[in-house]
Amino acid sequence: MLTCAVLGATGYTGIELVKILLRHPGVRITALTTRQKENIPLRKLIPVLPEALDLEVKRWSFSEIRRAAELVFLCLPHTEAMQTAEAFHRAGKIVIDLSADLRLKDWRLYEAWYQVRHTHRGLLKTAVYGLPELFRSKIRKADLIANPGCYPTAAILGIAPLLREGLIEPDSINIDAKSGVSGAGRKLTPATQFCEVDQNFFAYKVGRHQHTPEIEQALSFAAGRKVRVAFVPHLLPIERGILATIYMKLKKGVRAPAIAQAFKKAYSDEPFVRLRPEGEFPALKDVQRTNFCDIGFGVEPKTGRLIVVSVIDNLLKGASGQAVQNMNLRMGFQEEEGLRVW
Amino acid sequence: MLTCAVLGATGYTGIELVKILLRHPGVRITALTTRQKENIPLRKLIPVLPEALDLEVKRWSFSEIRRAAELVFLCLPHTEAMQTAEAFHRAGKIVIDLSADLRLKDWRLYEAWYQVRHTHRGLLKTAVYGLPELFRSKIRKADLIANPGCYPTAAILGIAPLLREGLIEPDSINIDAKSGVSGAGRKLTPATQFCEVDQNFFAYKVGRHQHTPEIEQALSFAAGRKVRVAFVPHLLPIERGILATIYMKLKKGVRAPAIAQAFKKAYSDEPFVRLRPEGEFPALKDVQRTNFCDIGFGVEPKTGRLIVVSVIDNLLKGASGQAVQNMNLRMGFQEEEGLRVW
Amino acid sequence: MLTCAVLGATGYTGIELVKILLRHPGVRITALTTRQKENIPLRKLIPVLPEALDLEVKRWSFSEIRRAAELVFLCLPHTEAMQTAEAFHRAGKIVIDLSADLRLKDWRLYEAWYQVRHTHRGLLKTAVYGLPELFRSKIRKADLIANPGCYPTAAILGIAPLLREGLIEPDSINIDAKSGVSGAGRKLTPATQFCEVDQNFFAYKVGRHQHTPEIEQALSFAAGRKVRVAFVPHLLPIERGILATIYMKLKKGVRAPAIAQAFKKAYSDEPFVRLRPEGEFPALKDVQRTNFCDIGFGVEPKTGRLIVVSVIDNLLKGASGQAVQNMNLRMGFQEEEGLRVW
Amino acid sequence: MLTCAVLGATGYTGIELVKILLRHPGVRITALTTRQKENIPLRKLIPVLPEALDLEVKRWSFSEIRRAAELVFLCLPHTEAMQTAEAFHRAGKIVIDLSADLRLKDWRLYEAWYQVRHTHRGLLKTAVYGLPELFRSKIRKADLIANPGCYPTAAILGIAPLLREGLIEPDSINIDAKSGVSGAGRKLTPATQFCEVDQNFFAYKVGRHQHTPEIEQALSFAAGRKVRVAFVPHLLPIERGILATIYMKLKKGVRAPAIAQAFKKAYSDEPFVRLRPEGEFPALKDVQRTNFCDIGFGVEPKTGRLIVVSVIDNLLKGASGQAVQNMNLRMGFQEEEGLRVW
Repeated sequence: MLTCAVLGATGYTGIELVKILLRHPGVRITALTTRQKENIPLRKLIPVLPEALDLEVKRWSFSEIRRAAELVFLCLPHTEAMQTAEAFHRAGKIVIDLSADLRLKDWRLYEAWYQVRHTHRGLLKTAVYGLPELFRSKIRKADLIANPGCYPTAAILGIAPLLREGLIEPDSINIDAKSGVSGAGRKLTPATQFCEVDQNFFAYKVGRHQHTPEIEQALSFAAGRKVRVAFVPHLLPIERGILATIYMKLKKGVRAPAIAQAFKKAYSDEPFVRLRPEGEFPALKDVQRTNFCDIGFGVEPKTGRLIVVSVIDNLLKGASGQAVQNMNLRMGFQEEEGLRVW
Repeated sequence: MLTCAVLGATGYTGIELVKILLRHPGVRITALTTRQKENIPLRKLIPVLPEALDLEVKRWSFSEIRRAAELVFLCLPHTEAMQTAEAFHRAGKIVIDLSADLRLKDWRLYEAWYQVRHTHRGLLKTAVYGLPELFRSKIRKADLIANPGCYPTAAILGIAPLLREGLIEPDSINIDAKSGVSGAGRKLTPATQFCEVDQNFFAYKVGRHQHTPEIEQALSFAAGRKVRVAFVPHLLPIERGILATIYMKLKKGVRAPAIAQAFKKAYSDEPFVRLRPEGEFPALKDVQRTNFCDIGFGVEPKTGRLIVVSVIDNLLKGASGQAVQNMNLRMGFQEEEGLRVW
Repeated sequence: MLTCAVLGATGYTGIELVKILLRHPGVRITALTTRQKENIPLRKLIPVLPEALDLEVKRWSFSEIRRAAELVFLCLPHTEAMQTAEAFHRAGKIVIDLSADLRLKDWRLYEAWYQVRHTHRGLLKTAVYGLPELFRSKIRKADLIANPGCYPTAAILGIAPLLREGLIEPDSINIDAKSGVSGAGRKLTPATQFCEVDQNFFAYKVGRHQHTPEIEQALSFAAGRKVRVAFVPHLLPIERGILATIYMKLKKGVRAPAIAQAFKKAYSDEPFVRLRPEGEFPALKDVQRTNFCDIGFGVEPKTGRLIVVSVIDNLLKGASGQAVQNMNLRMGFQEEEGLRVW
Repeated sequence: MLTCAVLGATGYTGIELVKILLRHPGVRITALTTRQKENIPLRKLIPVLPEALDLEVKRWSFSEIRRAAELVFLCLPHTEAMQTAEAFHRAGKIVIDLSADLRLKDWRLYEAWYQVRHTHRGLLKTAVYGLPELFRSKIRKADLIANPGCYPTAAILGIAPLLREGLIEPDSINIDAKSGVSGAGRKLTPATQFCEVDQNFFAYKVGRHQHTPEIEQALSFAAGRKVRVAFVPHLLPIERGILATIYMKLKKGVRAPAIAQAFKKAYSDEPFVRLRPEGEFPALKDVQRTNFCDIGFGVEPKTGRLIVVSVIDNLLKGASGQAVQNMNLRMGFQEEEGLRVW
């Protein structure tokens, strides 16, 4: 039994991660932490748990966690995550960080987009970007895994194979993404009050969302050249799910079968990516509460445009589900363990 | 007092139109029709009306309506609308048609996108496209007005001035539009059942929505050349409102002030278009239950992209509010009469 | 033109009140206040307003308001309201207080249920309870009006005539009330975050909601004896509206026509109460965004039970609409002025 | 491995049942039926299933099902269910009927409330009412199980122990129940269209809902005398969950500890009933997507009233989860098998 700690277990991703780990037959949760002063019964946070599951979330010291767990999940705010990651990495633990702190290889990008100093730049080279569909073999050996952001997961999976195969114009990518409210986390903000969100819809952080460089880094890697994208996130009046509609210009002469072929080549063996035939598009309901990423596409000869729709559950494939997928890869569990849910 | 008939008063647009007309001091509703056999008290359809308003919706003969009303609004299904429009037009009535039947100048486009025959092609030349911001002077003299579709209204208002001023690449337009469920009308369909829509989100009719040629016709007019667009509509789990996020490539050297200037030139005297300063974007809540179209934009030097967000209430500026705006223009009422609501 | 001030114009009731007053032909808003340091353009709070309406909400001194306005609406937190009411009352202004501070005649009840001291007990005798259907003639002459709570308005209107006519057992009343989220006001709380409310439903403050004594006071007045009720409020995942389902035991021998008769006697001349025939029940949609209270009832001979359903819009008949109705009565305007909306 | 058939697998309860059975280690699904002419891939109905689960829903003959399955779940419309139940019962199968056809012992009640003839009255004596908390030992031996309705499950579990212990006045029970939309099933109706339900709330079938006699039958059994209740269902604008707020008069001298004691006595060994301490009340979120029934209560000395709040997921404990619980009891599986979900 692998012993696991979840640091920051009271937010939406922490809660979702704990729910998966409790279902995982190869894992034992040995520490759940919070910065709050009072101990919190886990069933207070997750009331759907049976009464028998009487774990507590509480304050833990570094050395207690070090003794208790072999693998540490970090569901901490950025900047706090990087220093914790360093400490546990140095202590020989396997660390899966769900924050943004270790995702960007270039600390200057991090500092420009997050507007804080990166104080542990040395970790950036060590950390492996935990998107299994692109970096599976590296993840299998990584001791420090930077779990991808929710928007980047949806966007990258819908675009990378097309760039890799040279089917689209790299400078023509527009990503129109829509996310449920749980993506904003659990902190109190006017923007996530019921009366502000319900019956409403809006774009936010247009052209300046901090997930932009993360998307561009992975797409540049896939393309073998610098790629820049237009990325506009929107807030949906629903709890969970991300749908990205992606507009690209096809390279001259590229037809639908080539697109289908590129996706198939990339994903036909993937346990968590499902492809639709041309002209069929997935809905959020197809993937909510699962670890799947569903992808559909359409080709418009009239405009030379390719339209891809990619959907995920932002808390699962976009966060905690993917974190467990990464754990499974790293620890030699079956990749779908704990993640076969419906 | 202008006497008005609303043909097809039981659908969402018919109901919304009646609500406006009942507020309009210059208008008297003299006929409300339905194909249903039994008379329907208007207050059954619109329970928020005071008890004193005891109108009935019922079957009317052509000659009864002809005697009763000087102006006829058609809230009828397409194909049924065109023949009714012809009859009342020939009878010397002013006709405002909210269906799609008279919007496209080219009947071949109509037949291709709507998959039915256009049986009254002669009307297409006579009909004026009722988008006041583009065709105000023609509308003032028109006896046959083709009221625009909801998606086209949001899209065209967000793009036309930019094409007119030559600020964007005409072949680079991608329109990502999201609509509330009332846009689908009142007919029973599995797709609009609560349990299918709520908590869900999806694209539909990707690349084949019938509003595409209507958008392209108006944009081609504005550009003075053939314009084609990629247009993807989505269904939002809310009742009303359309938000269109529009991605365009800026022409070389074009900067934000030129964009602001183009919008200002087009709309600064418009009573129902409101502009935001660069980098500010409207939300659906800003325009729901009003006749406004709010427009925001952002320029991304990094990608050379211009992003425009345009929002309307699909039942008002996207349908019945615009129909009344057209009536006001045609009849010499003040343009905002009946439409100042909050 | 009556000059009006709205103190506390940034909350949901303040905003709704301003919207009505802006429509009211006999009124001019001369002061809109907030405790926040910076001036707030009204159109920031109410973006659906036309651009021409360029009022500002800002800090005002007591003497400025005294000079500016003849009538003062208080949309202030309780305890703050009572001292402001006293000051403006003493200054000779007409005061309509939307808080709970002046509703209960017995300050001991106030202190017990609100858990704060009542520091202006002298006002309680002067203040008139602003429920026009029960106290119209007093309201016409009142200089200090205590505008009722939202739950009490829905509950009292559904029960009072039955007690007055002696048709039900006064000790058998159970009020099951459900309210939209705007009833909780605009302050940030975890309970009103989108992800907590949406898809959820729950009872709160069971047996200890502070509106209980207000309901009991009015019902005791109607019954001419002490009446106690069981009252359970619930939170609906919608923005606005209250529906109260009320269970009562019929007195021996009472039949449906007597109930209908009692309601008709009480409300047939009321502009804002609408009655349904026996066995028909109103929905929230029937009254949302209006000042109506709709009432339906059913008699169950099998159990001797009477069931009443009463619905209002919590921000209108349950707060700001009723405040304007009270103003209209007091100032001699037509009772429906500003409140004919659909 | 137990072989199971689900007859009527395309409705909401059928789908939910199939999802549970696919998780159940002791069961193999051998037949999934529909009346529709074309075969339906199960993943079309349940898109969250992994691609490997490639079952089909299709037409089956009686004899094919008889050969294929030892146990038959009926998710059929009432009247169709009773004759199918008879046929499979006679063929020696274990039958769990999720319809209302076999729940009422008295066919006259059935005919009065469902307004159709009961053509298989002989089955009513044989059928066991499948509410494990009341009839576990009978269920263990039953070959014909009438799975309870959703409202009755929530109501009966919240009341029966109190009647059994003689703590409340049997003639004082008022049940105010609120259900999500999935309870209305999947058929197309205007009442379940998104634009009718969303932002709305209303009572329906007041005093004439067909679940009333089912509730009264079980409560009469618990009380050992005829019990009648007032029962008002309401439609919540959410997908799933039932919350029942139950108002009862306490017998003289009964205090809170006696109530707590009665519930504890009834449910302390129950795997799917969870009790709250006095004054704490469950929310829908506590039980959605689980088989739990959570119960809270409050005593009001002032009015002599007891208020109970009982919540379930209408598709699980209110239908398919309970059906599997019954199967587990009957077949000797562990009672929670397939139902430990979070």
